[in-house]
Amino acid sequence: MPTKTCVYVPVETLTDFMIDALAKMGVPQDDARIVAEILLASDLCGVSSHGVAHLRMYYRRIQKGLQLPVTDWSIVRATPTTAVIDGGNGMGMVVGFNAMRIAIEKAREHGLGAVAVRNSSHYGIAGYYTRMAAREGMVGMSFTNAHPSIAPTFGNEPMLGTNPIAFSAPTDEEFPFTFDAATSIVARGKIEVAKRSGKPIPTGWVMREDGSLPTDATHLIEEMTRNEAALLPLGGSGEMMGGHKGYGLSTMVEIFSAAFQEGAFLSELHDTDKEGNPHFLSIGHFFLAMNVEHFVPLGSFRKTAGSIVRELRASRKVPGEERIYSAGEKAHAKAARVMAEGVEIPPGLQRSLNKLRAELNIENHDLGF
Amino acid sequence: MPTKTCVYVPVETLTDFMIDALAKMGVPQDDARIVAEILLASDLCGVSSHGVAHLRMYYRRIQKGLQLPVTDWSIVRATPTTAVIDGGNGMGMVVGFNAMRIAIEKAREHGLGAVAVRNSSHYGIAGYYTRMAAREGMVGMSFTNAHPSIAPTFGNEPMLGTNPIAFSAPTDEEFPFTFDAATSIVARGKIEVAKRSGKPIPTGWVMREDGSLPTDATHLIEEMTRNEAALLPLGGSGEMMGGHKGYGLSTMVEIFSAAFQEGAFLSELHDTDKEGNPHFLSIGHFFLAMNVEHFVPLGSFRKTAGSIVRELRASRKVPGEERIYSAGEKAHAKAARVMAEGVEIPPGLQRSLNKLRAELNIENHDLGF
Repeated sequence: MPTKTCVYVPVETLTDFMIDALAKMGVPQDDARIVAEILLASDLCGVSSHGVAHLRMYYRRIQKGLQLPVTDWSIVRATPTTAVIDGGNGMGMVVGFNAMRIAIEKAREHGLGAVAVRNSSHYGIAGYYTRMAAREGMVGMSFTNAHPSIAPTFGNEPMLGTNPIAFSAPTDEEFPFTFDAATSIVARGKIEVAKRSGKPIPTGWVMREDGSLPTDATHLIEEMTRNEAALLPLGGSGEMMGGHKGYGLSTMVEIFSAAFQEGAFLSELHDTDKEGNPHFLSIGHFFLAMNVEHFVPLGSFRKTAGSIVRELRASRKVPGEERIYSAGEKAHAKAARVMAEGVEIPPGLQRSLNKLRAELNIENHDLGF
Repeated sequence: MPTKTCVYVPVETLTDFMIDALAKMGVPQDDARIVAEILLASDLCGVSSHGVAHLRMYYRRIQKGLQLPVTDWSIVRATPTTAVIDGGNGMGMVVGFNAMRIAIEKAREHGLGAVAVRNSSHYGIAGYYTRMAAREGMVGMSFTNAHPSIAPTFGNEPMLGTNPIAFSAPTDEEFPFTFDAATSIVARGKIEVAKRSGKPIPTGWVMREDGSLPTDATHLIEEMTRNEAALLPLGGSGEMMGGHKGYGLSTMVEIFSAAFQEGAFLSELHDTDKEGNPHFLSIGHFFLAMNVEHFVPLGSFRKTAGSIVRELRASRKVPGEERIYSAGEKAHAKAARVMAEGVEIPPGLQRSLNKLRAELNIENHDLGF
């Protein structure tokens, strides 16, 4: 029976469940482990929108033929420092994991490695892949495009995906510096959260077709789907507060994600073709690994990067503010709490996962709801 | 006699004047050509704050011993794809030009090239260097740190430089896609412009020590210099409108610019040491070149990148707006106008350049004022 309160599921229990669920969807066991780990990484970071909450969405996408459960990825072209990978329209996480692994291998030997990916699908949180590089003593970057959400400056039509920029750098702290953010002011997930909670959104997150800036989130997701509203780029509408900068960064991510692999972009990234028939998502990614030891000793890099974030955190605070954070810090603290307390599963997600269990005939795994 | 109106100086005349002025400051002739070209590139783009308007600032810096006119740069370390360069505390443009040239050479042979720079100085517009890569059929990126201006999220002390992100990609249009923007909402130059014109600035560009958001720009530059006010990151104050994203991007640029070369960062980038004595600026840069042909045919890349910007520009506009731009488009149009009409020199800059002429005993060069 679903409860009316949040349930906290131990990380290991939830991971085993996700692996089994993915296997039942047709994802091979080894790939299912990768996908589950990347979904879990999102819940550990506190980005619950991209974690286990997405499990049923992937099932729907597989059912609709938007992506394949078996990821038959292949290397289209490779040089000592670069590669282009075809994701075979499989599981984006499996493609992304292997693409970053290859970029890291190239950087280990040659200093730098870059891999462009075509024909992939939603790959979860971009910061997972850049953290892979940081663990190997490298700086990692990752970009992906996605279905249209953001309007360009002076426009109001969803054109660009939420196109994240992710960057990780090793530090001498317990965790790397990790920046991972959509180039819109907020990702779609925040609109969904406001809708569910019935709370208004701040003026300026979203623009309607008539140029108005709605605060009632009730119908915004549907309006965005019907092309009647769009997320605004980081910096907001117009140029006064730098909206053209968010727009430019989002376009940069689109170029990284599509142009290096002759791939789909912008309006081609809808779930359906012009006749309304579902088709492969054909999402593109880009991965970059830079081997620190080819520039300076890793220990020195770690010390500089760590000193930078410590000096920032120790700087003068706005009156009334308790502390200044650095990117990756909140995620690290959150991960420790989730490892100890389990992943929070709110009532709506409990219902969704119970439906998934029924759909996939999963009878073992006691999730506590 | 200085006029009270703007004078338009032909590009060639102004360039010759800048080269002579730089030579009189002690900059070797070949280096003076590079510096003048990069200053001019800024005026051509419409970024007049970083162009000939900075010529006298460089002279002041040379006089004060903040940087040297003769740029004795050297390669500290090199691998086939990477290099670390010491700028010898010379002219930032000469260092930057050579660093990007080396990154491009590495990328031409090996697909990717990255060069980190230490002990440099202000290098002008970041987008000049990324356009160098685009001209060679490559994607270019460049980062630099600078003296402290931006407060971190929940902070109000100038800590990070305006730390620009620059990115160029070849397209099938007449000009590359070029994104080049400070990671603050606005660069310092916009505060200076508001001060000179006596106009208020929008709420939220700057934060004072008490957390207030001033709109009167009269004393803000002085307040920023005294650590009493700071620029806010792209996204503004707090996290509501994504200010933590601008802060994160600015920190990423600081890490790129300092950690790969064991360099100075944040508060170390003041013009004076803790005793108030002038010292070398020790600014750091980072340059990345990615050879498109190592991924896909250049023609294909150009077509994809061009199609992306054209689709964006053709998308639905906010009612009342005339057009949607793509990054690099306004700069390209401006350059054509400036080439035809000359560089606009407003009265204040005429006075500054006349003082410089007197200081350097330059008697030839008819600038028209």
